[in-house]
This record gives sequence, C-alpha cells and structure tokens, in this order.
Amino acid sequence: MNDNKNIKPGVANSITIRAQYPNITGMLAKIISTISKNKGDMSAIDVVSIEGNNITRDLTINTSGDDHADKIIEKLQKLEKVEIQNVSDQTFLMHLGGKIEVNSSFEITTRDEMSKAYTPGVGRVSSYINQTPESVWSLTGKSNSIAVVTDGTAVLGLGDIGPEAALPVMEGKAMILKNFANVNAWPICLDTKDADEIIDVIKYIAPGFGGINLEDISAPRCFYIEQRLKQELDIPVFHDDQHGTAIVVLAALINSLKLVNKKPNELKVVIAGVGAAGIACGNILMDYGVKNIIGVDSKGIVSKNRNYDNNIYKSNFAKITNPENINGDLAKALNKADCFIGLAGPNLVSSEMLKKMNKNSIVFALANPVPEIMPEFVPNNITVMATGRSDYPNQVNNSLAFPGIFKGLLDVRAKTISNGMKISAAKAISAVIPNKLLNPDFIIPSVFDKNVVEQVSKSIASQAIKEGVSRKRKNEPNYYSFKN
Amino acid sequence: MNDNKNIKPGVANSITIRAQYPNITGMLAKIISTISKNKGDMSAIDVVSIEGNNITRDLTINTSGDDHADKIIEKLQKLEKVEIQNVSDQTFLMHLGGKIEVNSSFEITTRDEMSKAYTPGVGRVSSYINQTPESVWSLTGKSNSIAVVTDGTAVLGLGDIGPEAALPVMEGKAMILKNFANVNAWPICLDTKDADEIIDVIKYIAPGFGGINLEDISAPRCFYIEQRLKQELDIPVFHDDQHGTAIVVLAALINSLKLVNKKPNELKVVIAGVGAAGIACGNILMDYGVKNIIGVDSKGIVSKNRNYDNNIYKSNFAKITNPENINGDLAKALNKADCFIGLAGPNLVSSEMLKKMNKNSIVFALANPVPEIMPEFVPNNITVMATGRSDYPNQVNNSLAFPGIFKGLLDVRAKTISNGMKISAAKAISAVIPNKLLNPDFIIPSVFDKNVVEQVSKSIASQAIKEGVSRKRKNEPNYYSFKN
Repeated sequence: MNDNKNIKPGVANSITIRAQYPNITGMLAKIISTISKNKGDMSAIDVVSIEGNNITRDLTINTSGDDHADKIIEKLQKLEKVEIQNVSDQTFLMHLGGKIEVNSSFEITTRDEMSKAYTPGVGRVSSYINQTPESVWSLTGKSNSIAVVTDGTAVLGLGDIGPEAALPVMEGKAMILKNFANVNAWPICLDTKDADEIIDVIKYIAPGFGGINLEDISAPRCFYIEQRLKQELDIPVFHDDQHGTAIVVLAALINSLKLVNKKPNELKVVIAGVGAAGIACGNILMDYGVKNIIGVDSKGIVSKNRNYDNNIYKSNFAKITNPENINGDLAKALNKADCFIGLAGPNLVSSEMLKKMNKNSIVFALANPVPEIMPEFVPNNITVMATGRSDYPNQVNNSLAFPGIFKGLLDVRAKTISNGMKISAAKAISAVIPNKLLNPDFIIPSVFDKNVVEQVSKSIASQAIKEGVSRKRKNEPNYYSFKN
Repeated sequence: MNDNKNIKPGVANSITIRAQYPNITGMLAKIISTISKNKGDMSAIDVVSIEGNNITRDLTINTSGDDHADKIIEKLQKLEKVEIQNVSDQTFLMHLGGKIEVNSSFEITTRDEMSKAYTPGVGRVSSYINQTPESVWSLTGKSNSIAVVTDGTAVLGLGDIGPEAALPVMEGKAMILKNFANVNAWPICLDTKDADEIIDVIKYIAPGFGGINLEDISAPRCFYIEQRLKQELDIPVFHDDQHGTAIVVLAALINSLKLVNKKPNELKVVIAGVGAAGIACGNILMDYGVKNIIGVDSKGIVSKNRNYDNNIYKSNFAKITNPENINGDLAKALNKADCFIGLAGPNLVSSEMLKKMNKNSIVFALANPVPEIMPEFVPNNITVMATGRSDYPNQVNNSLAFPGIFKGLLDVRAKTISNGMKISAAKAISAVIPNKLLNPDFIIPSVFDKNVVEQVSKSIASQAIKEGVSRKRKNEPNYYSFKN
C-alpha cells in the first residue's frame, strides 16, 4: 500500500532529513529544487545549527511512500558537499512506546485512599457486586469499557499480518474512541485464527466489558463469529468492518439521494466486493428500502445460479439480491445502475464503465488508499462522488460511526445492537448536515465535527430504549444513601 | 469479612450521615456522645446549612463494618428531633463508574495527526511489525502493558465470588501499578473456571501484553495454570498471590533475621496454610537456605505419610519439607520453632502456642483482615511481629512487590521471571531499610516509600540480564534514522 502513482505525497509518509552543507548562496535552492524535481512535498525547513562555514537544517518532506522517500534521500546524497546526517520518520516516532495508556481515575497518595480503593475497602464493593450482580455496571468501569478484538487476519488493506502487527491499528482505534467519545477501549489481539476459539475467548473475557468491537477479522469467518457472539453474549457485539462501513455508506447515500432526487426503492445499486463490508452494506440498504442490489466479486456478478467461488454467506446474499438474476462482469452490472459502491480494490472501474450508469448517479469508491476510480476520471453522469480518502471531498470513514455508536450503547448499557439502531445511526450522521448546506461535495460531515458523536450516540441510545434492549437503572442502589 | 470484634473502625468502612436537628445547645453533644457510646469513630463534622431554627450537618464516622454502621444510624434515628436525611458511603462512592480509564498518549485534534496515528500512516507501522516481529516491543504499548487476569475464584478473603465481583479488586491493582510503577495494567476477568480454558485464553490474548499477572485464582488450579503458561509463553507470568506474598515474606524475614541474629539454615519455620501463598513461601525460603520448614493446613501437619486431604502439590511439598516427618497439629509444629508464618485464617494461634516457640522468635500473622493472632496477644519470646494490617507496625503487603517487579520485567522486556529474580526482589525490598534503622517495629518499608519500586525494579532487571532472560535491543531499528 505504500507506493503507488495514485498516492500523493502526504504526512503519513513524512520524513525529516537532517542535512549539513556549506552556508553559501545557492546551496539551499539546489537542495529544494532536487526535492521538488523528485516530487517531494517540502513541508518545513528548520535551522538546527550554524558552525563555521557550515549550516545544518532539518528538511521535512511529505513523500508518497518508503520507495519515494529513499529516492529523494539518494538524490540529496549525490549533491556535492551535502552531508545527510540523519533521517527520521514522523509516523514511526509517533508510535514509539504505543499510543494508549491506562490511568487511575484518581491518584492514590495516602493510606486512607488505598484502604478505600484497594484492600480492605474494595472487599465490601466486591461482596456487594457478588450479592447484586447488576451493580457491576455502576461500581466498576464495565459501563464505559469495550474490548477492540482482532485476530489480525484482515488488517486495513494489508491482509493477514498477525495479531502483533495489528496492534498499532487497534491502539489507534482506542485513541479515537477516547478522543471522540470518551470511551475506554482496550485492544485484544488474538493469537488464534480458529473461529470457535475466538468466540470462546471473547465470551470468557466479556465480564469486564460493556461491549465488543470486532475488528479486522477476515470474511467469511467474521460473520459466524459475530452471529454466535450476538446470540450468546448479553452485551453488544459490533463488527466495525461490516457495520461501521455499512452505516456510513447509508448515511452518505441518504444525503446523496436528496441531491439526485431519487428514492431508495427506485435504485439499482452495484456493490463491488462481497465480503464483510459488501454484504453488510447490501443488508443495511435493503433494510432501508433498496430493492435492486447486485453484488460483484472478483469472479463477476453473484447470482442465484452461480456455482463457483461461493460461500454460504455469498449464496445467501445472492438469494435476496440481484432480482433479475443477471450474470456477467462488473461492466454489465453497472449498466443503467444508479449507485456504485466500491469495497474492493484499486482502479477496478473505468470512466467508460461509469458512463453506462444512469444520469445523476452516485459513486462511492471506497477502496483505500487507492479507490476503484479516482475522482478525476469520473464522467459527467455521476453527480455525487465519494472516496475513503481525506484529500478529496466526501470522505466515507468508519470513524464517523463507531465512536458515537459505542458511546450510545454504553450510555444505556445496551444488551445488543439491532438493525434498527444501525439505521438510526446512519440517519443521525446524515442529519448532521443541514439540507441547505448539502451539495455534491458535502454529503458527509467531517470526523472532527463534534455533532457527529453526539447525534449518533443519542440516536443509538434512544432507539435501544425504544426497542427494549437497554438496561434499566431503576432498581439500582443509590450509593448516596444506600443504607437508607 | 466486614464485621468482627477484632476490626477497629477505619476509613474503609467510613459513612457520612446527613442529619438535621434544632440548632440548640446540647443537641450536637448528644449526637456525638451517641456515636461515641456506640464505638463510632467520628472523623469529620461539617455544616451543610442553617435554616430557621434547624441546622444540617454531615457527620463522617469510621465504623467497623456494615452492621456497625447500621447500628449507629439506628441509634441516631431514635434521638428525639434528629432527622437523618441521607447516608453516603465513601468507599462505594469512590468506586462509582470504575477506577481506571484508557487514555491516548497524545490528543488527536487534526487531520494530519489522525493520518499518522491512524489510517493511512498506521499501515506502514503495521507492515513494519509484520516484517520485523521484534519491533512490536518498540512500536506498540506491549512493552509497558500487562494483563491482570483472574477467574474470581479466590478473591481476597471472599472466596469464589465470580469474575464481575472480582473486577473492583483488579481495577485497584491496575491503579496501584500505574500510581506506583507507571505500568499500564488492564483487568481481564474470566467467565470460566476451567484451568485449560484459562490457559488457552491467556495464551491467545498474550500478543498485546508484555507480562501476565495472575490474580486471585484458587489453589491448586493456580499452580497448574502458572506452570503451563510459564512453559508456553515468551512473556513473564507471575501469580501474585503466590510469589508476591512469598517475596514480601522473605524480605521481612531477611530483616528479622538480622534482628534476632539467626541464620536461615538454623531456622525451624512453620507455615500455616498450604495453599498458593504457603507453598510459594516455603519454596522461596528453601531457595534462600532455610532447611526445616513444616507446613500445616486445617487437617494438621503436612507429612510424607499423611494420606488424606492431599493434592499433588501438597504431596510434593511434603516431600521437600518437614525433614523429621512429624505429624500432629499446629501446636505441635510450633514447638521449638523460630518462625511462624500464618497464611490461613483469623485467630488460629493462641498465646500459649507461641510460648512454645524458641526465644527471639518471629511471627508473621498475615491473614487479612483478622490475623492468626493479634499483636496484643503475642508473648515475650516473640521478638518480631508482623501482620498484613496497615494499623499495626510491619505491614507485609504484596503492594511492596508487584509494582516494582512488573516495572523491572518490562524495563528489560523479560521473557520469564525466575526464582533468582524473585529472591533478588526480596533482597531489594529488605535493603530499603538501612541496618541502623532496623528495629522490631520497622522490618519492612512502607508501600508509599518510592525507593521500593525503584530498588525492586532495578534488581529484577539486572538479575534478568544476568540470567540471560531479558530481550536484547541491539538489533532494533533506530527510528530516528531508520532509513539510513
């Protein structure tokens, strides 16, 4: 994923080169021009020291990946009288030592505090929970803690890289949950790929958590794991790769439909990628009223009579989609479609293919970092274009959903998360943009818009109460007068 | 454990009573005298409001437990013109909402930060770990994170109260690890009591942690679980109830021996309680050079020919202890003993029994909260007396060991913890008290002495390096110039 001609230089690939050179006119210009000729994007120049005739500077450069960075370094090294002393990598430095920590909610500095927070006082609290089990929700951190669980089999676009390599992503997720929604999330990276073992581990560790975020577990195992855990646990289980994506896609679609003036039941929607995200998107769109959905994978259209490269989940998906039961390739599927949702891979779709779609069509090309088609190449019949990238308008990003979803679930101590709750979250995200501000380049709010978490969590909480899956607090002891 | 005539009123059982009464001379005196007659220990009196002829006050009272508190409240309610409006419980209030939280090591407020800490930048870090697995120790929080794992079967003196009720204790432990040693600890409370399942769960969740603290798992299961995990994991596994106790007991003994001028190999040591802590204490004492140890459980002395109420661990313990192979009860065992270590239960030992011990003997009566014998009742042949209580001198408390131990283990990324490392930790604790300050009422430092964590962690780290069980860092990439 690091090097591709479609990747613009960006901060995720930023390097800082410490270079020493003679402090004479023209040297800096030569250095900058070398960087620029090699397509490095200079973002900062700082003086480190001036000693005698020499000057040392830190040159911070956004690159498009490791190979690109290496090339720039190599070219600079070839410049006469330029000595490169050091190269540091901002992204790696940010991850050193990890990105999350466990803190006490209050400090323990005296014997008295220790006697209440720990032994012997804590024994009274433990006894109380043992006698009145529901009080674990108020007397411990369970009510605001979730586990972010992965087996490392489907991490970002990197595939099966294992539990250790998945940890930085899970820590990032935990950071976002705290920063955006004040939820305590702890990463659990599992050293097993066996679905039943994963289910067992999660069931066994569940007592300390108020919810489970399944993350980056490959399809089709993720469906079975989620299904069983939803049946067997009394706390919500949410596979973000499926439902986080589906919720944000639906949110984007709700606003797009306002712009193109079409109704869900009139749409023909083509989904490229029939894995975790694709199937979940199809399901939520059907729940929202879309009738004609066609799934396409690397082998072509998924149909009821296709008898190769299926799994039970794809076959079941075929049964409820593709109403005309067409067969063929992606180009054929896109003919007269109104919406394309790409959850597959880079550059799968050509301008020509999209021209066969209807007027006023919608394209969500969500493969990351390189979409199914770059926005530059989208033809005129496409009214709304969105990607997963932050450097184009309309970034469809799971971070819009999961922080508010878990906050809402924990706020009402929900027992599960239903389809109705997911749709309510999508509606809440789309409603953050007032109708009068809606336009083809602004169909989805920014992840930094604080209204998003607030509205999503409220919608999840109130829908949970409406559906009777929240935990009531009325029988809970009032510890402010618990002896009366 | 809440109510016992041996428990003095303390802050762990502190209540605040909000009382309204006529603001006339003599009323407050009557209230205070009622509290005092009923053995409540008044710790604070605050005025809440004065309205008309009435005054409202908060009376904060240390009690000896729930029943005692109820009695005081009842007596106050019977006082004429005194209206009790509210009773709050300081200990319960402190636990509301839990005691720990997960925080980001830095805030994410801009798009650029998010691009480096999360997607797309994090993908580069994940790829790097996938290619160079040892870098998980530097590029994630693994190197400073441990799991505090329990199944809730042996929680404090409360027994098998289950994983939810154990959570406040595990949170307390996590707090102490952060406050004392800056270690990130996350509680994992397991909903299974099956030893093999517990082993599996811990193995599966291990990738994200640099160490495992087993906690409050009942004997003899804890021995098997620890043994297997030590064999099968490449991070240290430390069962605190066993080894934390053993280390602090040895530390206390090392200093006591200086005072009574005896040598380890001359001692006869009686250990009451042949469970997790008792067996671990016996083992560490033998490693330290003690030759004559006698274990006693509720059925009497554990001997080679005793054929009832054994388990494999007790039988193995019998094989290496009790060299004269005596049989009988605790009183018989104590005859001419030099050291008694109580890890059993309240009031097991009488003054008469201790009188049969040698001159200049040592008694560690560590049952909590009520020791095997209260210090008041110890005869004159006992030179050194220690308990697990904070309201007497010489508190033998695991909090002296585990924070520094885990800090030391993580500092050198240890692969395991050996007996040699445990003994080095005990020596480090004992050495915190300079010889010239040693006296029978000061054989063990306070848990709030910052030297303890520092010395223990250093001793663990250097012993780990000496024994070759630390992880070397020399092949680690230098991210400050990782491209050169």
